[in-house]
Amino acid sequence: MAQRRVVATQVGIVGAGPAGLMLSHLLARSGVDSVVVEARTRPAIETTIRAGILEHGSVRMLLDNDVSDRVLREGYEHEGIELRFNGEGHRIDFRALVGESVWLYPQTDVFMDLAAARERDGGDVRYGVTDSRVVDVVDAPAIEFTDAEGVDWRVECEYLAGTDGSRSICRREVPETARRSYFREYPFAWFGILCEAPPSAPELIYANSPHGFALISQRTETVQRMYFQCEKDTDPAQWSEEQIWAELGRRVEGNGFELRRGPVFEKTVLPFRSFVCEPLRHGRLLLAGDAGHTVPPTGAKGLNLALADVAVLHAALAGYFATGSTTGIDAYSDTALTRVWKAQHFSYWMTSMLHESPEANAFDRKRQLGELTSVVTSRAGSTWLAEAYTGWPHR
Amino acid sequence: MAQRRVVATQVGIVGAGPAGLMLSHLLARSGVDSVVVEARTRPAIETTIRAGILEHGSVRMLLDNDVSDRVLREGYEHEGIELRFNGEGHRIDFRALVGESVWLYPQTDVFMDLAAARERDGGDVRYGVTDSRVVDVVDAPAIEFTDAEGVDWRVECEYLAGTDGSRSICRREVPETARRSYFREYPFAWFGILCEAPPSAPELIYANSPHGFALISQRTETVQRMYFQCEKDTDPAQWSEEQIWAELGRRVEGNGFELRRGPVFEKTVLPFRSFVCEPLRHGRLLLAGDAGHTVPPTGAKGLNLALADVAVLHAALAGYFATGSTTGIDAYSDTALTRVWKAQHFSYWMTSMLHESPEANAFDRKRQLGELTSVVTSRAGSTWLAEAYTGWPHR
Repeated sequence: MAQRRVVATQVGIVGAGPAGLMLSHLLARSGVDSVVVEARTRPAIETTIRAGILEHGSVRMLLDNDVSDRVLREGYEHEGIELRFNGEGHRIDFRALVGESVWLYPQTDVFMDLAAARERDGGDVRYGVTDSRVVDVVDAPAIEFTDAEGVDWRVECEYLAGTDGSRSICRREVPETARRSYFREYPFAWFGILCEAPPSAPELIYANSPHGFALISQRTETVQRMYFQCEKDTDPAQWSEEQIWAELGRRVEGNGFELRRGPVFEKTVLPFRSFVCEPLRHGRLLLAGDAGHTVPPTGAKGLNLALADVAVLHAALAGYFATGSTTGIDAYSDTALTRVWKAQHFSYWMTSMLHESPEANAFDRKRQLGELTSVVTSRAGSTWLAEAYTGWPHR
Repeated sequence: MAQRRVVATQVGIVGAGPAGLMLSHLLARSGVDSVVVEARTRPAIETTIRAGILEHGSVRMLLDNDVSDRVLREGYEHEGIELRFNGEGHRIDFRALVGESVWLYPQTDVFMDLAAARERDGGDVRYGVTDSRVVDVVDAPAIEFTDAEGVDWRVECEYLAGTDGSRSICRREVPETARRSYFREYPFAWFGILCEAPPSAPELIYANSPHGFALISQRTETVQRMYFQCEKDTDPAQWSEEQIWAELGRRVEGNGFELRRGPVFEKTVLPFRSFVCEPLRHGRLLLAGDAGHTVPPTGAKGLNLALADVAVLHAALAGYFATGSTTGIDAYSDTALTRVWKAQHFSYWMTSMLHESPEANAFDRKRQLGELTSVVTSRAGSTWLAEAYTGWPHR
């Protein structure tokens, strides 16, 4: 067995998704070194289509930290959403209510921007590694892995950031006795499609219908993204284009609104669960993003929550390396979790308000419509939703 | 069998609770005659202790229509409530948020004021009747009953108002095929006490605790009302004062807050259910208040919703008798139900946000705390709650 090469850095980062790369990027700007280790290859990540709605705070992170301003040129600013129920649309006007907007900009593009920025700035990111493991997370953390050329490495670091997604290997290093896991399963899933068609609407439409939830989203002028609530064990291959359009149509069409149909070229069923690991720190290991928590897709909080974690974590680590004080690191988990639980509630709220639960009775369904009415007829109710959707301020 | 005496009136009203008496009072002020029929005696109603929080719109109905201004002298104006969770209190400042307040004033007193006003104004209210039934509600409605002196009566009317509470005999006259009932059961109940003690707090405290919900309310300077969530089949007789105070204490005390204890002189277990009957009209029968819908006590919407129904129904009937147009009567059910379903949602929301459900897991409990945090840290969220609690405007 060849000898393992050893490299020392200040922060070892497992996972080169948007959270890991953004952390590495921000740390570099604060003069803190890091090494990022990622199992997938860069082309593999760049060709995995992932949707995205960016909070204004997430967009600001890209712009203010000199990652890229491509979001301004290729993204789409949305100043509201539509809530559709009882066959009628009701716009939640973010700009008018909270003075903010969100941006339609795929997570894949956020990754590409961050990966390019890290490359441009000489960041150390190791894609396509195998046999990764993290060791001694409490006292002397290190990441061990084999790189794409077959060379064995050991990255020794002062702090270790686990940004390696929902199947995090980092999280597993926290003993069961030192953490608590919180789960919520939902009795449905989302059927998502990409199709070749012009946009059906300028902004996202969240529809509550007697046939279940549907979300009309967009991607470009010629490609659209749509979803509808389906049963958990749905096999997308069993659904024809005709069936898909019939299902979407009966959930959102009417009162003058019609979907613009086109060839469906991707069909997927998205998992639907809520998860939080507490605390987000164990010794010198700090979890961020999906490694620490998962939200259902309603409300599009996943990526934004990961970036919000990173904003807090970056400040904590930069503070430590500048002054030696662990105050920020000691507060990281509690600070991040306050936002996480608010976002978990928001995601649950949007989900429960808009979906047809198989456990719901006729009362629950009418109450849902009363809730939606109460939200759209109250400026305060609409504002509360708009604040959460566009994103609470980063600290 | 003695002959039935027949009396003709414009509106027959079954039930002399606050809804029925307020309707009769408002109709009289609009020059419309009514007869109110009630199974209970007036002293029996006046000695049944019923709590009450009045929305500002309900107080205005009493004041602006010359019922009584006793609420101003004997009621207590509350300009906010406290939401207590994670052991800390957070005030929702109604006055600052929406410019309104609510009044602590028992339903029993509302009844007494209305009964006195009807007596003062020469209203026809028959208390203590037996064998009541309503007939021909579609075409030629009438109420038949035996009065307190044993005389049989038949009240013939153009419209019939069913304000006879949750076990309404009027509702039963609507054929099953012509109405739909919506129910929601809750897996808990409220244990309520009255005790001799000074107030523990100046305003209501709604407490979410790991041991379940508690509500610290008030009545007078020397008598207090408190509640705590309990199991549905709880027998109040089995609970000692010590057990009651221990249970209340561990749910609300801490961080400097202590209950002021005293002898408990009433113990009751309150039912906890949501119900709506749709529509609220069948032919010439119009249902209002608990006859048409029941809310759980969280949020104190029951009496207020009944009075809001009456505001709409009075306008509809007064319009009909003034002009012959049934426009208002035709719209009554839909108009009233819009508010009813918003209030059903509010009552459900307050219930689900504050109670410990036996069906909830650890995630749900943490999410609840995230929700409460989101409400109290957002002016919009707090305002949305304050709007609903103090009462949406009457039409």
